[in-house]
Amino acid sequence: MRAAVFNEPGSISVVDRRDPTIVEPTDAVVRVVLACVCGSDLWYYRGESPFEPGPIGHEFVGVVEDVGPDVRNISKGDFVIAPFAFSDGTCPNCRHGITSACAVGGFFPSNGDGGQGEAVRVPLADGTLVPVPGSGYSDEMLASLLTLSDVMATGHHATVCADVKAGDTVAVVGDGAVGLSGVLAAKRIGAERIIALSRNPVRQALAREFGATDIVEQRGEQATEAIMEMTSGVGVDATLECVGTGQSMDTAFSIARPGSMVGYVGVPHGVELPIGEMFRRNKGVRGGAAPVRAYIPELLDDVLERSFNPGRVFDFETDLDGVAEAYAAMDQRRAIKSLLRVGSL
Amino acid sequence: MRAAVFNEPGSISVVDRRDPTIVEPTDAVVRVVLACVCGSDLWYYRGESPFEPGPIGHEFVGVVEDVGPDVRNISKGDFVIAPFAFSDGTCPNCRHGITSACAVGGFFPSNGDGGQGEAVRVPLADGTLVPVPGSGYSDEMLASLLTLSDVMATGHHATVCADVKAGDTVAVVGDGAVGLSGVLAAKRIGAERIIALSRNPVRQALAREFGATDIVEQRGEQATEAIMEMTSGVGVDATLECVGTGQSMDTAFSIARPGSMVGYVGVPHGVELPIGEMFRRNKGVRGGAAPVRAYIPELLDDVLERSFNPGRVFDFETDLDGVAEAYAAMDQRRAIKSLLRVGSL
Repeated sequence: MRAAVFNEPGSISVVDRRDPTIVEPTDAVVRVVLACVCGSDLWYYRGESPFEPGPIGHEFVGVVEDVGPDVRNISKGDFVIAPFAFSDGTCPNCRHGITSACAVGGFFPSNGDGGQGEAVRVPLADGTLVPVPGSGYSDEMLASLLTLSDVMATGHHATVCADVKAGDTVAVVGDGAVGLSGVLAAKRIGAERIIALSRNPVRQALAREFGATDIVEQRGEQATEAIMEMTSGVGVDATLECVGTGQSMDTAFSIARPGSMVGYVGVPHGVELPIGEMFRRNKGVRGGAAPVRAYIPELLDDVLERSFNPGRVFDFETDLDGVAEAYAAMDQRRAIKSLLRVGSL
Repeated sequence: MRAAVFNEPGSISVVDRRDPTIVEPTDAVVRVVLACVCGSDLWYYRGESPFEPGPIGHEFVGVVEDVGPDVRNISKGDFVIAPFAFSDGTCPNCRHGITSACAVGGFFPSNGDGGQGEAVRVPLADGTLVPVPGSGYSDEMLASLLTLSDVMATGHHATVCADVKAGDTVAVVGDGAVGLSGVLAAKRIGAERIIALSRNPVRQALAREFGATDIVEQRGEQATEAIMEMTSGVGVDATLECVGTGQSMDTAFSIARPGSMVGYVGVPHGVELPIGEMFRRNKGVRGGAAPVRAYIPELLDDVLERSFNPGRVFDFETDLDGVAEAYAAMDQRRAIKSLLRVGSL
């Protein structure tokens, strides 16, 4: 099979690799239909995080080609969504809904295959994969289903961690694909006012389409001033921090009202939490790698009912051969998120 | 009137001060019946936090002697509980339940009087004071009512921030009066297993009386090992951090299970939050100065129904003249918490 590999910062190519096969009796092999590039892929692409040369990618949907003898709930031919982490679904952390901390699980591509390739060996298939009911999905719906493997579920996780409730005023720091998905997730929960921080017209437009009621173009202290003014000096009821830098976290805490939560989903790089301000104003924080598998069922229902359309986050599309350009477009912020058409359904 | 004052670290005395009077039309003057010494008073007593010489104390119950012309809900002769912070009850932060961040409020003794004295001018009396219904309270009940001004409500805040639920396994780091109140608060909510960290036999006994099912005598990494073994390697569902030091916070995070919250109420001294571990395992944190005023009604009901007895936390008792010894006893850990009998009901 052919698959994308990381060579060194700035260098992604497509190579021939051996076809994945069942190794453990709980494995499945999935033939990839759609994959995509994640904002977190850019950390190693830019040389900002160490990464082993080899297979890459952790978001994909596809068709089950083979299952091991112990797999009970997944069958050959199923069209499935794969969360970016594999998990058994039965360990205490999975039972508590934190599938991304599964005691025996892991993260793609630690299984040996990345999602940005023609096929993937999926460990713990019963706990990990979610079959999609129905057939004859439109391209638009397929793209939305793909977002449930990470980006949409991660935006949703930010709202869960920030304790977003119907009627809330919510601020979203970060206008990447995750931040935009956070806007959509907040809208889905019923937030009344959604303030998106963005200075990019294309992203502003998508934020508005996803439910943002207000756009703040300022950054840093000026953003804080603008949002405090918009909220009569109180701050917002829930803050989604969707970047992962020290500055974005500082902004998030500065606009959170006393007693509220900051939900954060960007991998922290150089973040120090402001414990003094947090204590003084009773501001809490919670976040981490989204337990995507736990969230897929409820989000899937909404996608299938066509009540929302998270796949709109993809604004660049290519095939597996175009993967290097898919990375470059996101790196240069020409694209919000790049979709890869790898195989047919 | 006579009131305790802080002179310099290690030195507390009782002096004559002018009687408090109504200054603002929203004030009340309360004649103090019972007061007490807080663990946070020890920070300046020990010279570990800066503090202006002058009146001290922020926990008291007493009888209303006078009210300003704009006070509507509090009357002369009412027996009242005063939370350690005064608040108007109507600003956005108060309406969100965070009375300790009231836009126009403050903390005793910034009003000019401390709770450890014969009388106190209470600003924003309508928003701040809670009248206690009934009469003929036993000494035991009076002591329990006094705990609602801070320590019991602060223990309760730790459980709210840690998201304690019925059936949970809860760990409480810190065996001071707040930690012990946290044990009682967790029991009240219906925690099934409550692990108290303590190596002091007197405090262990009170922890058990308050509902602790397990005592861990180890500290640091050994405490973590013990609790991880007790929880089959998973960690606890909710962690109350009731000390405020870096070591106690580290211990708290090390025993929190993935996806759980650490609720902290000890004023942080030298605490750095472990953002990497927090993200990797989806562990959140929330805490601060307890919004005592918002919690008093529900806790008061339970005290009046005699269903729990937080006043058991007092194990040293004296009068106002004995205030220096009341501090010394707590400083030297001879007492868990010192009660001052200041006036008659």
